[in-house]
Amino acid sequence: MAEKITSREKDYSQWYNDLVQNADLAESSGVRGCMVIKPYGFAIWEKMQSELDKMFKQTGHQNAYFPLFIPKSYFSKEASHVDGFAKECAVVTHYRLKNSENGNDIVVDEDAKLDEELVVRPTSETIIWDTYRKWIQSYRDLPILVNQWANVVRWEMRTRLFLRTTEFLWQEGHTAHATKEEALEETQTMINVYADFARNFMAMPVVVGSKTESERFAGALETFSIEAMMQDGKALQAGTSHFLGQNFAKAFDVKFATREGTQEFVWATSWGVSTRLMGALIMTHSDDAGLVLPPKLAPFQVVIVPVYKTEEELLSVSKVILDIKQRLESIGISVKFDDRETHKPGWKFAEYELKGVPLRLTIGSRDLENKTIEIARRDTMTKEVVQMSQVLDLVPKLLDDIQVNLYKKADKNREDKTSFATTYDEFKQLINKGGFVYAHWDGTSNTEEMIKRETKATIRCVPLDNVNEEGNCIYSGKPSKFRVLFAKSY
Amino acid sequence: MAEKITSREKDYSQWYNDLVQNADLAESSGVRGCMVIKPYGFAIWEKMQSELDKMFKQTGHQNAYFPLFIPKSYFSKEASHVDGFAKECAVVTHYRLKNSENGNDIVVDEDAKLDEELVVRPTSETIIWDTYRKWIQSYRDLPILVNQWANVVRWEMRTRLFLRTTEFLWQEGHTAHATKEEALEETQTMINVYADFARNFMAMPVVVGSKTESERFAGALETFSIEAMMQDGKALQAGTSHFLGQNFAKAFDVKFATREGTQEFVWATSWGVSTRLMGALIMTHSDDAGLVLPPKLAPFQVVIVPVYKTEEELLSVSKVILDIKQRLESIGISVKFDDRETHKPGWKFAEYELKGVPLRLTIGSRDLENKTIEIARRDTMTKEVVQMSQVLDLVPKLLDDIQVNLYKKADKNREDKTSFATTYDEFKQLINKGGFVYAHWDGTSNTEEMIKRETKATIRCVPLDNVNEEGNCIYSGKPSKFRVLFAKSY
Repeated sequence: MAEKITSREKDYSQWYNDLVQNADLAESSGVRGCMVIKPYGFAIWEKMQSELDKMFKQTGHQNAYFPLFIPKSYFSKEASHVDGFAKECAVVTHYRLKNSENGNDIVVDEDAKLDEELVVRPTSETIIWDTYRKWIQSYRDLPILVNQWANVVRWEMRTRLFLRTTEFLWQEGHTAHATKEEALEETQTMINVYADFARNFMAMPVVVGSKTESERFAGALETFSIEAMMQDGKALQAGTSHFLGQNFAKAFDVKFATREGTQEFVWATSWGVSTRLMGALIMTHSDDAGLVLPPKLAPFQVVIVPVYKTEEELLSVSKVILDIKQRLESIGISVKFDDRETHKPGWKFAEYELKGVPLRLTIGSRDLENKTIEIARRDTMTKEVVQMSQVLDLVPKLLDDIQVNLYKKADKNREDKTSFATTYDEFKQLINKGGFVYAHWDGTSNTEEMIKRETKATIRCVPLDNVNEEGNCIYSGKPSKFRVLFAKSY
Repeated sequence: MAEKITSREKDYSQWYNDLVQNADLAESSGVRGCMVIKPYGFAIWEKMQSELDKMFKQTGHQNAYFPLFIPKSYFSKEASHVDGFAKECAVVTHYRLKNSENGNDIVVDEDAKLDEELVVRPTSETIIWDTYRKWIQSYRDLPILVNQWANVVRWEMRTRLFLRTTEFLWQEGHTAHATKEEALEETQTMINVYADFARNFMAMPVVVGSKTESERFAGALETFSIEAMMQDGKALQAGTSHFLGQNFAKAFDVKFATREGTQEFVWATSWGVSTRLMGALIMTHSDDAGLVLPPKLAPFQVVIVPVYKTEEELLSVSKVILDIKQRLESIGISVKFDDRETHKPGWKFAEYELKGVPLRLTIGSRDLENKTIEIARRDTMTKEVVQMSQVLDLVPKLLDDIQVNLYKKADKNREDKTSFATTYDEFKQLINKGGFVYAHWDGTSNTEEMIKRETKATIRCVPLDNVNEEGNCIYSGKPSKFRVLFAKSY
């Protein structure tokens, strides 16, 4: 219930944990760093999946499935990839347990040791490019536009529900192309799909940009990301799209016969978003009373709570509610009617506030007489009593309005916490206040590293909509042609 | 292409493997026993998932997600479960790799050994019931009706694409109830959902029954299954639903306060179907020319192939095709227009035959003049030329007809290969011919085991629609009240 949630002001991080658990989104499991995604949380993720999947298919992609396990030797084939990924991974070394000698326990059977260890996939480039070698002979086999919805494992030392967990759910697109241009175009198409999804479904403003060399995906020549700002001013990387050049094709010897008959290495991209988006969604909109959900991703958009004293009153109220429910559903709105007699209306109000249901309708016996209905908005926490006859008109309008309002509110937060620094002193002051700071940078990894060490801020991206502007690096004073986006991040 | 497929008569098992690979359904990967599900195969699985998921939701279930890893000690808590599952599993023992001393290789970092090994889930009862302990306090928290779509791993020694793979995809329902009756009802509801799905979507007849003690799920008091017959007369267990009693509640100490204030252990069920259904689908309907798909599960139900000589002809044919495509889609039919200029019509015909597309429409220049269209049915391999004006009427009718026809054909195969044995000699003869044999059994595990040893046939189930009938066990001659279903199985 709502009273269990710490306020954001008091402890932002505790607020987040309280909310995730109390709104029934997820919880820690008995396995270190692995979470249980509870039904209400999973229903939001399913909505996200379903919308993203449609967008992937509209852009020509098909789903497939590749093995969970990757032979250790596959990682050694792409040098920078192994450094980035293969090391902090779950390693399968045996394939059998047996009873211990005293019979009281089960232990690993040393006779069932694998010849080659298997790594639980942290990402699937290696196993997929090993497969693509068999799929690609000629330019006629290209492009391959494949996506996979899967679980992956990265052995994280510090975990937080949704934001950083040892196992997480994601999708990973892996495409193969005949030309560099086509692969680059795909990389950009997909980061734009992510930006669209973030803005139009999650109601979350994002900055689209390219990563600096040191922040790139291990094995990529170029990484694009979408960067969102959380309410505390920290940045959250919400999705990435990588141009992999011919690195994986070379590592796994994937060549194709061109139209002209020559043999060339294939060009690659990969791109992904994960259950981390759940964390982003929560931290973008929610408040001290609990979760706030954009209507387009809410498991149910409207909840109807009956208020009654007698069994008879419940019956007549229910009749009206079921009619309204059915009519709202017929215009595509998802509705839950909570007629549980085990809980009082006040308890239910608090529950749905906590769970972020966009609209709550309340109908009591007096409403029946007056032909009225109470509508409460979760985003503004406002209530109004309207004529029952207006409901079918009003509800879709209000839902649209909430979707737009949430975006605007988040965008205002982003604007309020965005600033421009000219000197390093100014930069340090602004970064300490939290938020996005645009500043000139000399383009070197060394400067980037020094700033990170001294301020904990990283270059989130070089925004794609950058305006050329002459200036000087805040750190080295060297000339620079555009500003980059700095922030502390999740 | 079709010519690569071995005929069923020549080698049924090779026919299956050829078909799975050539129809682009799945292939072996570089990881022992793990398969790659290719886009076309995965599109069929997605259709299955989507229909099943709807059926689960209609029966009140919600999806959730539980960890991939299960601490070894969890398995020890339910004695029969550990024997059945924990032993042939992938075991994670370390969480880090490092560079070898000579720097040429990566090796397991012995400093990163886990205190307790993690088993990659072979099924999730243990981790889920460990979680349910936190979710259930009172009768108000019951029932819990949860399903999970996930990958699981069982270290199989002999693997076959879809039928038995080390890693496979499945769904596992796990429900918790206040009473034994309610849990038993849920177990039956779900086996009936599976039977409905098999019959109405897969066009696959199934026998619903309960398993004998020796064939039950490890940890179950009762297991129901659906048993289908493949074209070679072998049985394939296509889905199971388990009544788990209070076994897991006791193992994980999950109690609830009843309405009357007493503390009781919770009653459990679990139920699942897997990518094995793909194998069942393939072996139920396909022929020597390739895959045959029921329209309700085909990634696209209709393919349209243009026949043309000149660029100009292609243009005019395409215009008509796009119109037909759009009109078919508007009535809910999925259509692919294959306008690739890189392949000839004959090549495409063979390709879609191989891939089991239910209907193929062909339109050429002469058809334009005559206002005709050629329609080819995959199930009967028949073709007819019809008036273009009839297409919109005809296509949905033909698709319905194919769906019904496939069921009938499979049902006839089942009937033809079903027999009744009275003596053991007769039984052995019938079982050797292949197919389902109904026979009396004395109800003992010993007799069941002897018959299995001597004939390789197992009791697939005690059919739920059994008719009481006095008789004598074919093996021991002891009295028996009904027949059970014997077969050799996958």
